[in-house]
Amino acid sequence: MALKGNALIGQSGGPTMVINASLVGAIQAAEARDEIEHFYGAIHGLDGILHENLIDLFREDDEVINALRYTPSAALGTSRLKPTERDLERVLEVFKAHNIRYFFYTGGNDSQLACHLISELAKQSDWEINIIGIPKTIDNDLVVTDTSPGFGSAARFAAAATQFVAKDAEAFGNAEVVEVMGRNAGWVTGATAVPRKEEWMAPHLVLLPEVKINPDEFLESCKAAYSEYGYLVVAVSEGFAFADSDVVATTDKLDEFGHARLGGVAQALADLVEDTIGARCRWDRLGNMQRCFAYCLSEPDLQIAYAVGEAAVNRAVDGETDIMVTIVRKQNDPFEFEIDATSLMSVADQVKTVPLDWINERKDGVTEEFIEYAEPLMRGREVALSPDLPSYPRLRKLFVDKKLGEYVRKK
Amino acid sequence: MALKGNALIGQSGGPTMVINASLVGAIQAAEARDEIEHFYGAIHGLDGILHENLIDLFREDDEVINALRYTPSAALGTSRLKPTERDLERVLEVFKAHNIRYFFYTGGNDSQLACHLISELAKQSDWEINIIGIPKTIDNDLVVTDTSPGFGSAARFAAAATQFVAKDAEAFGNAEVVEVMGRNAGWVTGATAVPRKEEWMAPHLVLLPEVKINPDEFLESCKAAYSEYGYLVVAVSEGFAFADSDVVATTDKLDEFGHARLGGVAQALADLVEDTIGARCRWDRLGNMQRCFAYCLSEPDLQIAYAVGEAAVNRAVDGETDIMVTIVRKQNDPFEFEIDATSLMSVADQVKTVPLDWINERKDGVTEEFIEYAEPLMRGREVALSPDLPSYPRLRKLFVDKKLGEYVRKK
Repeated sequence: MALKGNALIGQSGGPTMVINASLVGAIQAAEARDEIEHFYGAIHGLDGILHENLIDLFREDDEVINALRYTPSAALGTSRLKPTERDLERVLEVFKAHNIRYFFYTGGNDSQLACHLISELAKQSDWEINIIGIPKTIDNDLVVTDTSPGFGSAARFAAAATQFVAKDAEAFGNAEVVEVMGRNAGWVTGATAVPRKEEWMAPHLVLLPEVKINPDEFLESCKAAYSEYGYLVVAVSEGFAFADSDVVATTDKLDEFGHARLGGVAQALADLVEDTIGARCRWDRLGNMQRCFAYCLSEPDLQIAYAVGEAAVNRAVDGETDIMVTIVRKQNDPFEFEIDATSLMSVADQVKTVPLDWINERKDGVTEEFIEYAEPLMRGREVALSPDLPSYPRLRKLFVDKKLGEYVRKK
Repeated sequence: MALKGNALIGQSGGPTMVINASLVGAIQAAEARDEIEHFYGAIHGLDGILHENLIDLFREDDEVINALRYTPSAALGTSRLKPTERDLERVLEVFKAHNIRYFFYTGGNDSQLACHLISELAKQSDWEINIIGIPKTIDNDLVVTDTSPGFGSAARFAAAATQFVAKDAEAFGNAEVVEVMGRNAGWVTGATAVPRKEEWMAPHLVLLPEVKINPDEFLESCKAAYSEYGYLVVAVSEGFAFADSDVVATTDKLDEFGHARLGGVAQALADLVEDTIGARCRWDRLGNMQRCFAYCLSEPDLQIAYAVGEAAVNRAVDGETDIMVTIVRKQNDPFEFEIDATSLMSVADQVKTVPLDWINERKDGVTEEFIEYAEPLMRGREVALSPDLPSYPRLRKLFVDKKLGEYVRKK
């Protein structure tokens, strides 16, 4: 017999353009399942669970819930909290106090690990609960699943932005370095190459964290491309480093970048390129816009994000637990997919980087296989934009009464 | 009797999302005027004139010309060249060699000055020519005209991007500083406040270069807003400086920013804010995307950009010269405007900053008058986006035979 009780959902890590679509998928599936009495939302992920900051999702307006499906960023609030053992025990206490029998956590590999640990702890203390991870990350670095919701839209933004700033660089006859998110995995950076149909088009060079190119070879290629096309565009992952170096910087002048924080690589590279080609090199850092620039929503990304939320709830109620739902691609034209699942342990703490045979021999571009993989995920929505400026609904956030004493976190 | 001969057009300074719409307006008007035999385009503005890099615009495909109307950045290539006296003489030689009787230059106040100087020189040497400046600048700092083509779209991008990254900051409960273009004029930065309908909405503070706020007052306001709303968003002009300081930096730690180049102010401010409020403060630099992110094209901006190009050609052929065409706003709902003109000398080297009575008393926001001015210019296009990634036409660039010897520029 199916478990009956309350369900809880949280959003974790960096927001995306479609993480709320997963939330809406979960809510709308839960509304149809009698086994779920109340559906709670954790405010700021695990942090909200620890402090019992829980809201009642079934009491939100349907209109707001429908509109959230297209609203970027995490409507419940998110958190990067990494739980200690004591935190995990508190989570279980909160689950028991609020009769939580279903738990859904939307996040990357850290979050899937947290889900698994909570699942183990619940088993040990005989608290019957079904726990399912919902994949989410713009970095696309979750293993097993074909893609992670959030990637397609971030990739669409990064690729469009690169084309746009390339037009600007071309008009000046300048060079330009575009800095793209991705510490260990170059999926979003590689995706900037998708619109490049001809040699003269941008980006001419794409630098991923998966491979290390020699700085002299890179600068030679910059020189050659600039002289051939009259402008130059380089897309670089924020986590990129040259061969024999932990950071992009290869000169004293540049040592301050890269070490200090992620986010300096474009500026450092731009200085190097400018010195080498003898023409102005500017830089752009796509920054937080990659997670939330909703004019670049990808239609397949929206669809899979909704589907994983919906499937997580249905599978949990049907008795599955300790799994993350996954995407299986069926075909590219038109894009079709199915939902499957994998054990939480198979994805926890794993990182899917760009396969080395999808990176070109010169280590400064991606192959046709990469393009064929990424392009279908980056297709935009065919809807007219509003002439107004962006404006989004907010949850009412009706808080559930707390049942436990205050929790003081120790690190 | 109207002048008969060839016409020449160039694009100058920073590109915009709509500078090509002005080019298309000029070409399509010229096609209907028999007085214009050939219509040439200067490749990279004045640089192209000096070196006789001129293309034949009437030989371009109509389809490409029509598509250019919606293509961001300067299709002819642009230049920041400031002409010397010798350069101006060379320009006149080129005009004579190619029988240029009409000259149009699309740019900001520098470019209008160059137009006037060329006009004076032509008069002195009895070369009959009609010269008309076409306004363009995202900075919106040209005087006399109600607005400058390029501003509305840049403002729309900056306002949308600020709303999007604000959602990201809100989800984390973080602070965020958004750096917006504008060295001396805060029009684009002020425009980020247009979508703010409620106190809790972003941006909570807007810092313009027109006024100097005391750093302590600013940080107090940050603290208050963060504690009230649970997140904080500050929009700042790249040219902003605190009171009693040439740069944003007020501590040794930050001295390296601001001095080095425009473009460090957000990072410097973010450090200050983070120290003050005790929560993470991130930063985004909207960068070159402000000039070219075509998903944010403003409909009124597109219309006025086309209209100024068209009017410039018609007025020149009708005998007007030594003027810049201007926009006169007729009404806001729906947005309607007329074209007028002003002498080049009335706009050359002048800068229109945000009126001080459109900035609030605390010097950290704009007034309702500012919003009423800016909002109608920022309305988007009601067309469906393509699901494909951006792809734009390129001119064939059929070069005109050179008639003069090589020109070697001396600075």
